[in-house]
Amino acid sequence: MTRFHLPEDQIPTAWYNVTPDLPEPLQPPLHPATREPVGPDDLAPLFPGALIAQEVAAERWIDIPGPVLDVLRLWRPTPLVRARALEEALGTPARIYYKDESGSPAGSHKPNTAVPQAYYNAAEGVRRLTTETGAGQWGTALSFACTRFGLDCKVYMVRASYDQKPYRRVIMETWGSEVVASPIDDPGHPGSLGLAISDAVRDAAGRDDTHYALGSVLNHVLLHQTIIGLEAKAQLELAGESDGPDVVLGCCGGGSNLGGIALPWVTDSSVRLVAAEPASCPTLTAGRFEYDFGDTAGMTPLLPMYTLGHDFVPPAIHAGGLRYHGDAPIISALVHAGRMEAVAYPQGKTFEAAVQFANTEGKLPAPEAGHVIRAVIDEALAAKELGEERVLLFNFCGHGFLDLAAYDDYLHGRLVDA
Amino acid sequence: MTRFHLPEDQIPTAWYNVTPDLPEPLQPPLHPATREPVGPDDLAPLFPGALIAQEVAAERWIDIPGPVLDVLRLWRPTPLVRARALEEALGTPARIYYKDESGSPAGSHKPNTAVPQAYYNAAEGVRRLTTETGAGQWGTALSFACTRFGLDCKVYMVRASYDQKPYRRVIMETWGSEVVASPIDDPGHPGSLGLAISDAVRDAAGRDDTHYALGSVLNHVLLHQTIIGLEAKAQLELAGESDGPDVVLGCCGGGSNLGGIALPWVTDSSVRLVAAEPASCPTLTAGRFEYDFGDTAGMTPLLPMYTLGHDFVPPAIHAGGLRYHGDAPIISALVHAGRMEAVAYPQGKTFEAAVQFANTEGKLPAPEAGHVIRAVIDEALAAKELGEERVLLFNFCGHGFLDLAAYDDYLHGRLVDA
Repeated sequence: MTRFHLPEDQIPTAWYNVTPDLPEPLQPPLHPATREPVGPDDLAPLFPGALIAQEVAAERWIDIPGPVLDVLRLWRPTPLVRARALEEALGTPARIYYKDESGSPAGSHKPNTAVPQAYYNAAEGVRRLTTETGAGQWGTALSFACTRFGLDCKVYMVRASYDQKPYRRVIMETWGSEVVASPIDDPGHPGSLGLAISDAVRDAAGRDDTHYALGSVLNHVLLHQTIIGLEAKAQLELAGESDGPDVVLGCCGGGSNLGGIALPWVTDSSVRLVAAEPASCPTLTAGRFEYDFGDTAGMTPLLPMYTLGHDFVPPAIHAGGLRYHGDAPIISALVHAGRMEAVAYPQGKTFEAAVQFANTEGKLPAPEAGHVIRAVIDEALAAKELGEERVLLFNFCGHGFLDLAAYDDYLHGRLVDA
Repeated sequence: MTRFHLPEDQIPTAWYNVTPDLPEPLQPPLHPATREPVGPDDLAPLFPGALIAQEVAAERWIDIPGPVLDVLRLWRPTPLVRARALEEALGTPARIYYKDESGSPAGSHKPNTAVPQAYYNAAEGVRRLTTETGAGQWGTALSFACTRFGLDCKVYMVRASYDQKPYRRVIMETWGSEVVASPIDDPGHPGSLGLAISDAVRDAAGRDDTHYALGSVLNHVLLHQTIIGLEAKAQLELAGESDGPDVVLGCCGGGSNLGGIALPWVTDSSVRLVAAEPASCPTLTAGRFEYDFGDTAGMTPLLPMYTLGHDFVPPAIHAGGLRYHGDAPIISALVHAGRMEAVAYPQGKTFEAAVQFANTEGKLPAPEAGHVIRAVIDEALAAKELGEERVLLFNFCGHGFLDLAAYDDYLHGRLVDA
């Protein structure tokens, strides 16, 4: 067997909240002006009450609302796939499984949180959402989700992506969103996620009918993504892997897809957890663990996380997404406590891995996914070297059909490593 | 239930050959010079013996070789999906099912025949394949298949697509193919499928190590695509639709995806079969049923089919694929005998349908698929008008992630109807 389908009636009906199970308690976010812990009232201009409650929830399981499940079931449960062709090409005794999140409307894992975020906002009477997008995955996902719940959506897109990825703009427009290049006040600036967040937050804070939605980093975002790992747990049983995985891996930008696949294994100390990040934006491997702003302008609360500094802008040559200066506080806490490992790769090595995956498994990875595939291949080759059976599980977070300009650069020698 | 997965061990292990079950016998292809029926020797410079045998096979079932199944299982069986969100939006009593072929490596149904074609060629010692591609779906599929069987591949790409769809070129190059714009001898010409076929056939005919591969039209191509309809039959049982569909629909360019979904129902006279084609290339609805060349230069055998003339070039404004001047002899015979209906749509109506599908079902259709979705929506609205339950089955032949320039034109009013 190659692909393992979880029956539709076994879709998880609750998300897993890891915060009570973290090895170190999470430090609270701080108000940007007072540097005191933020309360629900501070967040109310940007987020609906349900998401604010999830952000600080202490219970381990949070029910998924029925209308959210109804939309998620358009593509979930997603398949768990045994990468037999890749295993054969590597000659490894490792058994490699991946969760295929590329079949969602947006082609990535991002709709897993876009859908509940749109739902909770609509349920509390919000009419319009703003957000930022870098590579475009998140804006695409939120655009789709807003369509399903009748919300207007405005996307501030990092200008470098806006210019280089017109197809990303078009797909967001197809789902009815308004898309503008960010920073809006400096047409000569290539932009960054931090700047785009500032634009989107400023817009939402200035209008009563509008909230803001974030695609990664925050606790409620990682919470929603745990449906990936929860499904994978049940599917590994179907695959006969009742001992579970030895290593769980994900690429890491803000941390949401990594959290989604990895958090359900945090309490199982026999499972190694691995974050793969780009060498040109090496937050976990070279950043500092400290309070920093989520955005560049310093409008968001201060978050306890690994950070390269909120004014960090990754090199323009970097094609592989994962460009955020910080990381999710939950992911940062796991790395800080030694529960999760982190590795960084130059982009040439990640595209090499992505092409090997496309040539064997037949799926074209998003450049972000190339990072985790690099890590998986290295783990599988290490297992071969040691003659060890090893069960590897990773999240195939998205396809690369909208990222072919980066492949073009790679294939024709125009990619350089920072 | 929304999605119906056929267990992997129930993947069809034989293709269905419709030719003995056609209402009128197929007329043979004729030699372009002598106008006598072509024999196997005439085709040997272009095709391997196994495919030539399949082209004229009389038995109903032909085994799928194990190495072909091993590759098809990377993504097959594909899901059968109940389009509940679309049904709700239309308020129709019709039950709409679609076979989702968009999850293949190339994002379309085309690899279903690319894989066996590459296999049979490799098995007979061929080292290199040439082909043409228009919208890019077929060239992408063959590039992937050649990688799996160690063949070199050269793709002659219709120049208009080559210029407008650089991402299509890149994905073929990612899978190792050489891609050139066609016609190769006239850089000012926008090209056509017929011209690109001429280029590819000329290349293959001139080299001993090289064969040619065609992505549609021929009997063996439709044969390989029947795996779609065979899976769908089993999946409709899983869905509780043991009476089968009332209508089976597919879009039609050369006829391979339509044949794939529809041929297994030819002998069931209670099932209506419907072809949806573009009004700007209306082969079945406005063409003549006669012998014509498959290519523009007149190098291929003459085929008995509906045709707009082998020198037909569709208007450059047409964005929706399906630009071939002729149609598969099998499809043509079914239409000619009255067993299959055909409808033609202007492209604006097909993009309107595609956007409605994206907004409800969350999948972005290829422009080709927009044609069949238009037909399905019209059937579902007719069922609503009549207050009739009606089971509709169609083939979602591919996603539109590589066709967003056409959506951009549609959304911004730049598409006109011929």
